[in-house]
Amino acid sequence: MHYVKNPMEIELKSFEIIGKEMGEHNLNKEELSIVKRVIHTTADFEYKDLVYIREGAIEEAKKLLKSGVKIYTDTNMVAAGINKKALKDLGCEVITYVSLDEVAMKAKEEKTTRSMAAVSKAVEEGVEFFVFGNAPTALFILKELYEERKASPKFIIGAPVGFVGAKESKEEIEKLNIPMITIRGRKGGSNVAAAIVNALMYLLVERE
Amino acid sequence: MHYVKNPMEIELKSFEIIGKEMGEHNLNKEELSIVKRVIHTTADFEYKDLVYIREGAIEEAKKLLKSGVKIYTDTNMVAAGINKKALKDLGCEVITYVSLDEVAMKAKEEKTTRSMAAVSKAVEEGVEFFVFGNAPTALFILKELYEERKASPKFIIGAPVGFVGAKESKEEIEKLNIPMITIRGRKGGSNVAAAIVNALMYLLVERE
Repeated sequence: MHYVKNPMEIELKSFEIIGKEMGEHNLNKEELSIVKRVIHTTADFEYKDLVYIREGAIEEAKKLLKSGVKIYTDTNMVAAGINKKALKDLGCEVITYVSLDEVAMKAKEEKTTRSMAAVSKAVEEGVEFFVFGNAPTALFILKELYEERKASPKFIIGAPVGFVGAKESKEEIEKLNIPMITIRGRKGGSNVAAAIVNALMYLLVERE
Repeated sequence: MHYVKNPMEIELKSFEIIGKEMGEHNLNKEELSIVKRVIHTTADFEYKDLVYIREGAIEEAKKLLKSGVKIYTDTNMVAAGINKKALKDLGCEVITYVSLDEVAMKAKEEKTTRSMAAVSKAVEEGVEFFVFGNAPTALFILKELYEERKASPKFIIGAPVGFVGAKESKEEIEKLNIPMITIRGRKGGSNVAAAIVNALMYLLVERE
């Protein structure tokens, strides 16, 4: 049986199809590349209207990525989905604390979630680039810590998915005057969050 | 601000909402738990009509999981999304070969994709439980190897997502008389594939 085997060829062809099918939009070239990559990873054209990119957010993300920033992710799945070659080319690093024993213990002690304890640890370490694909509670705690002037995030990807708190967590974080990309409504997920990080990195580095 | 912090409470409430909103269906209890978990991980009700569960597939998957099967996944992201506690409780193991140097070398030598080389390695090792969330080519090669009587998969999750080959790869694999769960059409993904594995495991083990 004949089928296309070259991964880059498949990707280019996919983006061409997405471009044709997504119809009219007001996105600039960089914004478009992010939205297209989210649709590429979900095959869900609804994301055309769900991706919210704050003015100046892409510039800020690029600046941070070029400086070799430490990228905090809320799950191992987001971390696994981020392109390792692009990360290495940029000198960036992905961290996720949700599986650490010390985080599990802290969550138990403080009667909170592991996601929240993990964010607190990242904040204590001065992390500035946050990526959330799963836990609404992680976004809520980041907002609280920011308002208490304990956290100083410079860029946030807010893409928790779900039916309880996900939509609200993104509405809350959008109230902050911080460069961010969010997914509105219930949709999102670790795949979507990772796709946004990759799309941003691909604005700066050559694809394999 | 008040928000629900207990992860199990959030999950139960989410499943309740999904049940209410998904409307009528002909699914039995076990099938329903799989479909609901896919909707839970995507917030996309279209999956109600996209999840294909072959008759007897759940029974076969449960039998394999109870026997402590080795679960092959096509990406690190699928592997990362599979619940480690449930895996451990069942004595199962997740493997993914796509990042191995030997696989990259073999792919280069044989002018194929790493996904395909990784499946070949798994087949050589006698793997019987396959989970695909990303690469259509991996499903195509598994079908070829099966037809050449080199592979003997006992259960397959076919959930590649995308615009080039994904739909077709799932149509091809469905031609085989093997217990399987697939996602029809373009949709799917690593999150969906992992959700199906987790849903199957949760039929057998207590949730945290």
